[in-house]
Amino acid sequence: MKAPRMTQARVPLTHTVQVLDETGALRSLDIPAERALTLYVDKRELVTLMTLGAHPEWMSLGYLLNQRLIAHADDVESITVDWEVGAAGIRTRHGIADLAVRTASRVVTTGCGQGSVFGSLMDGIANLALPPTRVNADTLHAITDTIRLQDSIYKQSGSVHGCALFSADKLQLFVEDVGRHNAIDTIAGWMALQPQPLQNGILYTTGRLTSEMVIKAATMGIAVVVSRSGITQMGLSVANSLGLCAIGRAVHRRFLCYAGFERLQVGAAAVATPAAV
Amino acid sequence: MKAPRMTQARVPLTHTVQVLDETGALRSLDIPAERALTLYVDKRELVTLMTLGAHPEWMSLGYLLNQRLIAHADDVESITVDWEVGAAGIRTRHGIADLAVRTASRVVTTGCGQGSVFGSLMDGIANLALPPTRVNADTLHAITDTIRLQDSIYKQSGSVHGCALFSADKLQLFVEDVGRHNAIDTIAGWMALQPQPLQNGILYTTGRLTSEMVIKAATMGIAVVVSRSGITQMGLSVANSLGLCAIGRAVHRRFLCYAGFERLQVGAAAVATPAAV
Repeated sequence: MKAPRMTQARVPLTHTVQVLDETGALRSLDIPAERALTLYVDKRELVTLMTLGAHPEWMSLGYLLNQRLIAHADDVESITVDWEVGAAGIRTRHGIADLAVRTASRVVTTGCGQGSVFGSLMDGIANLALPPTRVNADTLHAITDTIRLQDSIYKQSGSVHGCALFSADKLQLFVEDVGRHNAIDTIAGWMALQPQPLQNGILYTTGRLTSEMVIKAATMGIAVVVSRSGITQMGLSVANSLGLCAIGRAVHRRFLCYAGFERLQVGAAAVATPAAV
Repeated sequence: MKAPRMTQARVPLTHTVQVLDETGALRSLDIPAERALTLYVDKRELVTLMTLGAHPEWMSLGYLLNQRLIAHADDVESITVDWEVGAAGIRTRHGIADLAVRTASRVVTTGCGQGSVFGSLMDGIANLALPPTRVNADTLHAITDTIRLQDSIYKQSGSVHGCALFSADKLQLFVEDVGRHNAIDTIAGWMALQPQPLQNGILYTTGRLTSEMVIKAATMGIAVVVSRSGITQMGLSVANSLGLCAIGRAVHRRFLCYAGFERLQVGAAAVATPAAV
């Protein structure tokens, strides 16, 4: 793989503000930073993302991958982020065919909003062969425990979503962002730069399992997604159609498996026992 | 006002699914419905929203208002929602000038996602004269209490956002949706159909106070927004520039006021007392 050349642009991730509390007292508080980053692909403006700004180069790369505008990291020659102007200049090796056409369709998605991801995200997904990853209750507990102990912007200032990539129960990367899709895309960008493919990949998110989250996980070759939150109907529908294991309400030792039951290993004893809930 | 003619399309809001819990037991669970609704304005396809589907006509109307594609409800002649085909047919009285141009710019926003709202939402907002609404701790407590006691899809199935419109401490409308912007837009549509303008309007949301939420509140003529969650940097910046009162972390009797301190009435005694936090 010929890795893209990338800047390592860094900016403060929190911002101190003065607030009034319920007693009328003035307090200092940290809130997450939020800044606009406009992606230019071969000098053509593509999109503006509102982001915390922790890993803009990985995020830009992951965005292109998850939108299926590029197939591999080495389709990109360089990514140059300049926070002074809020721009990520992406130079591809061979251009992106039909960029205007492929970014024309607009679907407004659920992830809290009326944001649109470019259409046709599902195109080509149906034929994806997901890896044979399975997961058991101990691994799930190790994952929620790791997240619980993770130092985070969220603990410091709230108002961000966290996503994490695991190889079985081993944390690979933890990313936070004001937009949870940015966090997933950042993980996708990082993954694409690793020399070895990930084994037993599991994606954790603090947010709901919406259809876009499930589609992005599948695009990243990940067959198991875990959320602290629940699932939407479209998220469930897409997970079922892709054979992806979707686990929600994962807190401490509890969880619910919504889809891909065959990937979940629950002990024979547990299965034989009447549900204790 | 000549009110638009509207259907009253109704669909089930939850959907029962089978899940496996951590003991390996199969359980039945309700999840929120999520369906695509494509808005056609004068037969031109505008956007597809993913929604719970509770009030598609109000949502469609509010979407057009909050995107500033129309100025008043009576710019619309009729809204016809057909869930069989997932379409909302909107007929305007006089067309929308430059629709293609005005929906061309794409900004991907924070509200959990990379969804884009059409650009230039801020255009024309700076000149908005917000009403002189003020709020005190008792009103805020009454609001959080009303929300806590509200029957909801959230309590039944989770995974939705709730928004509510208050006139001072009196609940006017409570709306839930899989996308929180849909909930806000639904409230905007309902508001625009009322014969009398709302007095002392306060908008409550379970979600974060992002820039779009603040902009939409201002567009709706609401000067006080309250959230159970926190605020983003852009949300704060927009609230400050508009003179809008932004209150977050509102749970029981506690809250933090991030912007528009002058609209918050906290007792003199409370102000004189050192912060008890």
